[in-house]
Amino acid sequence: MAMMTKEEYVSSLKGLDHRVFVLGEEIESVVDHPVSRPPAMAMAETYRQAELEETGTQFTTRSNITGDMINRFTHIQHSLEDLTKKIIMLREMGRKTARCFQRCAGLDCMNTLYAVTYDIDQAFGTPYHGRFVDFMEHIQSNDLVSAACMTDSKGDRGLSPSEQADKDQYVHIVEEKKGGIVVRGAKLHITGAVNSHELIVVPTRALSEKDRDYAVAFAIPAETDGVTYIYGRQPSDTRRLEESPSDVGNLYYGGCEAMVVFDDVFVPEERIFMKGEFSFAGPLVELFAAHHRASYGGCKVGVGDVLIGATAAIAEAQGTHRSAHVKDKLAEMVHLNETLHAGALASAGKGYKTASGAYAVDPLLANVCKLNVTRFPFDIARMAQDIAGGILVTMPSLKDRENPHIGPYVKKYLVGKDGVDSEKRIRILRLIENITLGTGAVSYMTESIHGAGSPQAQKIMITRLADLESAKAMAFHLCGI
Amino acid sequence: MAMMTKEEYVSSLKGLDHRVFVLGEEIESVVDHPVSRPPAMAMAETYRQAELEETGTQFTTRSNITGDMINRFTHIQHSLEDLTKKIIMLREMGRKTARCFQRCAGLDCMNTLYAVTYDIDQAFGTPYHGRFVDFMEHIQSNDLVSAACMTDSKGDRGLSPSEQADKDQYVHIVEEKKGGIVVRGAKLHITGAVNSHELIVVPTRALSEKDRDYAVAFAIPAETDGVTYIYGRQPSDTRRLEESPSDVGNLYYGGCEAMVVFDDVFVPEERIFMKGEFSFAGPLVELFAAHHRASYGGCKVGVGDVLIGATAAIAEAQGTHRSAHVKDKLAEMVHLNETLHAGALASAGKGYKTASGAYAVDPLLANVCKLNVTRFPFDIARMAQDIAGGILVTMPSLKDRENPHIGPYVKKYLVGKDGVDSEKRIRILRLIENITLGTGAVSYMTESIHGAGSPQAQKIMITRLADLESAKAMAFHLCGI
Amino acid sequence: MAMMTKEEYVSSLKGLDHRVFVLGEEIESVVDHPVSRPPAMAMAETYRQAELEETGTQFTTRSNITGDMINRFTHIQHSLEDLTKKIIMLREMGRKTARCFQRCAGLDCMNTLYAVTYDIDQAFGTPYHGRFVDFMEHIQSNDLVSAACMTDSKGDRGLSPSEQADKDQYVHIVEEKKGGIVVRGAKLHITGAVNSHELIVVPTRALSEKDRDYAVAFAIPAETDGVTYIYGRQPSDTRRLEESPSDVGNLYYGGCEAMVVFDDVFVPEERIFMKGEFSFAGPLVELFAAHHRASYGGCKVGVGDVLIGATAAIAEAQGTHRSAHVKDKLAEMVHLNETLHAGALASAGKGYKTASGAYAVDPLLANVCKLNVTRFPFDIARMAQDIAGGILVTMPSLKDRENPHIGPYVKKYLVGKDGVDSEKRIRILRLIENITLGTGAVSYMTESIHGAGSPQAQKIMITRLADLESAKAMAFHLCGI
Amino acid sequence: MAMMTKEEYVSSLKGLDHRVFVLGEEIESVVDHPVSRPPAMAMAETYRQAELEETGTQFTTRSNITGDMINRFTHIQHSLEDLTKKIIMLREMGRKTARCFQRCAGLDCMNTLYAVTYDIDQAFGTPYHGRFVDFMEHIQSNDLVSAACMTDSKGDRGLSPSEQADKDQYVHIVEEKKGGIVVRGAKLHITGAVNSHELIVVPTRALSEKDRDYAVAFAIPAETDGVTYIYGRQPSDTRRLEESPSDVGNLYYGGCEAMVVFDDVFVPEERIFMKGEFSFAGPLVELFAAHHRASYGGCKVGVGDVLIGATAAIAEAQGTHRSAHVKDKLAEMVHLNETLHAGALASAGKGYKTASGAYAVDPLLANVCKLNVTRFPFDIARMAQDIAGGILVTMPSLKDRENPHIGPYVKKYLVGKDGVDSEKRIRILRLIENITLGTGAVSYMTESIHGAGSPQAQKIMITRLADLESAKAMAFHLCGI
Repeated sequence: MAMMTKEEYVSSLKGLDHRVFVLGEEIESVVDHPVSRPPAMAMAETYRQAELEETGTQFTTRSNITGDMINRFTHIQHSLEDLTKKIIMLREMGRKTARCFQRCAGLDCMNTLYAVTYDIDQAFGTPYHGRFVDFMEHIQSNDLVSAACMTDSKGDRGLSPSEQADKDQYVHIVEEKKGGIVVRGAKLHITGAVNSHELIVVPTRALSEKDRDYAVAFAIPAETDGVTYIYGRQPSDTRRLEESPSDVGNLYYGGCEAMVVFDDVFVPEERIFMKGEFSFAGPLVELFAAHHRASYGGCKVGVGDVLIGATAAIAEAQGTHRSAHVKDKLAEMVHLNETLHAGALASAGKGYKTASGAYAVDPLLANVCKLNVTRFPFDIARMAQDIAGGILVTMPSLKDRENPHIGPYVKKYLVGKDGVDSEKRIRILRLIENITLGTGAVSYMTESIHGAGSPQAQKIMITRLADLESAKAMAFHLCGI
Repeated sequence: MAMMTKEEYVSSLKGLDHRVFVLGEEIESVVDHPVSRPPAMAMAETYRQAELEETGTQFTTRSNITGDMINRFTHIQHSLEDLTKKIIMLREMGRKTARCFQRCAGLDCMNTLYAVTYDIDQAFGTPYHGRFVDFMEHIQSNDLVSAACMTDSKGDRGLSPSEQADKDQYVHIVEEKKGGIVVRGAKLHITGAVNSHELIVVPTRALSEKDRDYAVAFAIPAETDGVTYIYGRQPSDTRRLEESPSDVGNLYYGGCEAMVVFDDVFVPEERIFMKGEFSFAGPLVELFAAHHRASYGGCKVGVGDVLIGATAAIAEAQGTHRSAHVKDKLAEMVHLNETLHAGALASAGKGYKTASGAYAVDPLLANVCKLNVTRFPFDIARMAQDIAGGILVTMPSLKDRENPHIGPYVKKYLVGKDGVDSEKRIRILRLIENITLGTGAVSYMTESIHGAGSPQAQKIMITRLADLESAKAMAFHLCGI
Repeated sequence: MAMMTKEEYVSSLKGLDHRVFVLGEEIESVVDHPVSRPPAMAMAETYRQAELEETGTQFTTRSNITGDMINRFTHIQHSLEDLTKKIIMLREMGRKTARCFQRCAGLDCMNTLYAVTYDIDQAFGTPYHGRFVDFMEHIQSNDLVSAACMTDSKGDRGLSPSEQADKDQYVHIVEEKKGGIVVRGAKLHITGAVNSHELIVVPTRALSEKDRDYAVAFAIPAETDGVTYIYGRQPSDTRRLEESPSDVGNLYYGGCEAMVVFDDVFVPEERIFMKGEFSFAGPLVELFAAHHRASYGGCKVGVGDVLIGATAAIAEAQGTHRSAHVKDKLAEMVHLNETLHAGALASAGKGYKTASGAYAVDPLLANVCKLNVTRFPFDIARMAQDIAGGILVTMPSLKDRENPHIGPYVKKYLVGKDGVDSEKRIRILRLIENITLGTGAVSYMTESIHGAGSPQAQKIMITRLADLESAKAMAFHLCGI
Repeated sequence: MAMMTKEEYVSSLKGLDHRVFVLGEEIESVVDHPVSRPPAMAMAETYRQAELEETGTQFTTRSNITGDMINRFTHIQHSLEDLTKKIIMLREMGRKTARCFQRCAGLDCMNTLYAVTYDIDQAFGTPYHGRFVDFMEHIQSNDLVSAACMTDSKGDRGLSPSEQADKDQYVHIVEEKKGGIVVRGAKLHITGAVNSHELIVVPTRALSEKDRDYAVAFAIPAETDGVTYIYGRQPSDTRRLEESPSDVGNLYYGGCEAMVVFDDVFVPEERIFMKGEFSFAGPLVELFAAHHRASYGGCKVGVGDVLIGATAAIAEAQGTHRSAHVKDKLAEMVHLNETLHAGALASAGKGYKTASGAYAVDPLLANVCKLNVTRFPFDIARMAQDIAGGILVTMPSLKDRENPHIGPYVKKYLVGKDGVDSEKRIRILRLIENITLGTGAVSYMTESIHGAGSPQAQKIMITRLADLESAKAMAFHLCGI
């Protein structure tokens, strides 16, 4: 089979029969609802880039499983070069969409399971790796999107899964049946869930023996019975519902997360990749975290590129681009953005080969990368708003510009330097607003903090991965102890 | 006459016959339109606090003009204590509304004109100060709100007002008539404009002789012919239009700015406070800036209090409040917030008496205060989002919680620690979203950068006000030069 | 009796018969040893300023105890104005000496004991306050310096004083005798100890009942038997010993700390101000901390002034002062420095009257002030070094400039812009080196972190003093809970 | 010929007959003078590491010029792997010495000239590249150290070299002779100059036609007539001269810079690599800057490792290592340190092949790396001092500990947790003092700002290298312009 085109992907979403609620109402098709369409179109862009001549080679590669050319978003990385190319592809996608395009969590999760199922099989003689390779063949051959479902609702964070008053606060096995298992629980913040063909479910934390029923990993089709999707609300999301949605800022793309509820869902045996091997939950989470934290030094950097570009553009439109402080702030924005990218590239460059043959990034540098991602976008956003000016949040709607009575005022008084049309000026400003305060801020700001794990999670990993013992030994030697 | 009650103020707004456009349509009454009502209610709170027993003494004082008790928001400060009490009152209002309550720009502008009209008269024998005192008597006796209209549309920022291709890019006198003048232009970002009874118009920058027609200051009733208000759009502003507007975050209050167009507006002589005395435009701008930059160390700190409170509350609701890193971040948020307040208090404590008898804050410290305000709210917001968790931007609408099919899922899986109801948890999160990404972010984030002048304006003033010469002399002495 | 002149103070130090060790050897007189003389001269400057016409009124005030005019460094503050004037005096001293001038820890400790002895007496009917007032009369009448001895050696920080393996790790009563007590232990980091006439010893932490013997406060003359001073070593301290000490940077002044050992020292009853009232140890420490943390927003700001002045001077000497980035960094340095000052001024302006009648600063703002002091000097120092250039640490000694063979090279190639003499250039650079990397860095950098308590101590106090409950209540109200 | 051993290198330095002045006096041998010996020993460590079994393969490689195994510090990098291995080697050296070991500026300069001489020859048909390859064969075969002499004394920074009043403020050709040229001028801040066998001299800035005489690059033996070295003074440098130099902190190693004066020095034709090709001065400077800025993400990170190790060690010795804030600060120090390393690794990973065949790092990422290096060490140093405690700058000399009278006090009261000996505690503290305030701070702090170019130089390069045009295009597309 071949890779899907963008159009085929969009059709495939229309064809999905899954239960999705948006703003309190069930919807028919995610690509036909104005709120959920832009996120689907961001995902669709991962297909289109693979089609294009100029980016196609970057977005495709030969599968080590099927031997066919596949979309790189479905590829198991098998070299340091693969790791680096993924980071660069993610930046490119960030530049194209200025948004979370939702396909990398699944990619990182597949790379994780490829390695971890191998390790589990080595330890316990289980058949998971082979099953998972079969699953990958299905994904690659059909060019499907799979969503990574990791974060549980968690209940009381001070208690382990099995200690919760409500046992369903973590997804778990409620019944073993012939040919499969039945699971229950809810996964939160699931990126791209409603735009995916398959859901991959994995544990969200290290587990101990008494949490055995929670040590479960599997994949199911998105339409599986018992699965419900509740779409997450975003700032300014309903601008897309307005009659003339000119104030949306980013005209084409969105990002989305959903709460995914598993209400006694059946999982067939061939789709189970972990069942009770609790000691591998921790390693799975850490490997996924490393992969995904490095990813953030790709995608967010691409969004940063767009924000920097918009900021440079508004400075020119408003005639402030030659001020020393504006130039200095733009250089600082670039500096911070590239520092994020450097973290990801370095983690790829220092990657290693896992026992399965798949490659993984250096975990210390991946965590360092992500910890910077939790910080710098706020600084970059602050500087973007600084250069944009207060008009960013006080300007009229583009609807006012279209009004016959006051439109002329808007056109006259919001004109830019050298006759830059007020519409152009407002559109750039709306894009900056979108990324720093609107639907795009979900991707660029809050998600930069929490996606792939919160800052404290990175601090903990950095503490564990830092080699303080050898550093102390050096210090002792130098001062004569 | 007495101070107005909150209800009288709201009635007075209903009675206003001014031309206001919101989202492309003219509206009847700002207090009856769901988008513009919350800002009016924030302003109304300045009246209510003066009525209340517990805050009344803080919000009222005796006028040195009328001799009557007046709302402190109309007071000309006449002592260091007055300066300090204003800052504390602004913080209190910030705490009460979590928003820009819009009445301090007018207050700061009145204090500025009181001093500057006196100085102009001393220099030129003009009658402005007496006129302005009459105006103040009107304001104080009727307990009116006046909006400060300062920032012009500016056209090409590299050119002075008189050099612009379109001469109207700064408000200017287009005609002198018997008994008054006619003015044209537009003022942007005018805080509380649509909720005010009077508009005070002043220049926005230092002017030279050729800009004489732009050296104009005056006050006119909000309903004056030729004045049009175009309401500024904000992130998530239309959540207030939703059927069940439970996702607004801040249930009661809003802030607002408008573009105010002066299309050949007549100003009677007795309301003119500057006409051609261009050399006083610079001092006026600087004095207003000092007053207003100090104000930001009051109001924004109050909003910061609410954000810190909401963050502490969500940490408890989610059971993370005992983590060392959460406690450390909360302490850091308090630290940054109080640093902002310290700047304002210090500028008040080191204030000075102007020639007019009115007091003004220390300009260096006021600029230092504001420069910190342009930075710390972004850090505080980042830490608030860090503690809140990713759920801040991925959670369902409260409408989903009310839906009979999925409401049970929302209630079950978004429950907080120790049975904290999901509604409570969501409501706190929506408030944090409001302040850091929604309508409140206009006040707390972008406006903290640009209100009262952008960071570079503060840097320039700090450079001018710093006494480097005496510092160099000290250094030379100590190293033996 | 009258205030001492600078000369009288220096003579009084020569007359002191105390046991002082510097760099491994006992010395005769602190003012005659080249390493310890500059700190004594910094202290002496507190006397000289009181003599001078231009600063005399600022440095003197009328005592509420003796009724005479006294040096403000011995004054018990009795008004908000007193609190503010102290801060301003400390900044002035910082500007004069670019160093820790060592007289404010004693001042802050005296103000603390004045209030706390009153409170103890109220609680227990003890006679401490009267004794302390007598002591103050002695200090004020003779214009003496008293050193505050607070920080103990502490042993294992995880254990309380009475739990230590070596009981002497905190100063404690080892014997009660007729007419007094005998104490043992060591106090570390004692600022100005070797330049003081009296030592005031107080506990360093909150104590519980089992630590009763450690709850001891007293004052003894510096020469008391059993007291030994071990002078602290500083970076580049021995440049003062060089034949031609032209590379010292700061030609006149130094700062110093010493370890003070109390080896079975007798304290007469009339000099005991706390003996066993362990519950007041905590309040004493906190009150001292508040006073002293605010002080840092005075003295360090003055040192900052000198560093900023030196930096502006070297930029001019090297011809870089017109670069936009240099101007921006200088403005930033001023901004940070004034932010520190604002914290201290605000804490004074929001001060309060204690039960004793003495005034104290607002503790929350004092801690906020100090926490900024632990951070900004490193940023200011970094920017100073940035503007100074690498020559700061690679330039030859002034001795090389005097060498007949290579002096001409140094003069030719280190000349500044417009013929600024190389000696002038080098001297300014040496001053910057002194403050950021030499003896002055002890005062300006490390001591800014640790003096008056380390950053974490401030974080803890900020957490305790922050009113999160009322902030939460505001938040709940606004989101409808 | 073979690589030198450490001992052979030290002997070779003894044999050098060059004119070196230290602290105003000419010295005989840099390895026999206590002030200049430690820097020589740091350099010597680059030889020793190549000898050792565990690091030998990392420090040696096969030359593409001679075909022999050589020390990597003399290697022309010919692959991406070479670029990365260099960075890792530099970090290792930083860990071993906690200091600038002085051999990488020469290495980076050789790699630069290899590429630039090739380009000049291509443009002008000159014979420079062949000459330079011969020079490299000499360096590699004899395993020599070459110092890069770049920064001129510069005079008035606002003027170009040829516009200076004193034409010698930039090194230039003063005479052309048969078989060579005569040059005059002075190079400042020359790292390792006195420990080198050869001096490589290159221009320090872009040049224009009228600066033709300043467009000169060459190499000469360190002992050449007319060359004088004036050793740079460092904080606490004379602790090495003390009788019992136990307070030096770093017992073995130092770093050093010198001013190198060229007083009519003859350069033979075969050692000239640029003569008048002014248009290549700019590219040469930029290529060197890129190489050397990336190097800082190696060496300084190694020093950071030692500082972090010492800080972790002192926390344990003092019993504070389990405090949450101490653990958090250590993690933050590691995070910042690794962020620096990531920048260097990324610039190597994204390197490119020059026309000469040699490889160069990505210039944007190299500048980004270095800009972070100008900032983070100050933060790391602040945290190190925070954890070390005030004792860092108030503790007695180790001489006091040896004194029979007070030694027992020092031993008793400076004991660490669980009986950690006071000497061990003091030694660790002295190492931290050394790196943050002593001779080591020259390398770790000031040099991190200025070495390889000051922060503003990086900002300028980042501005030039950033691709804002494509970023703007993305932004325009997304907002519909």
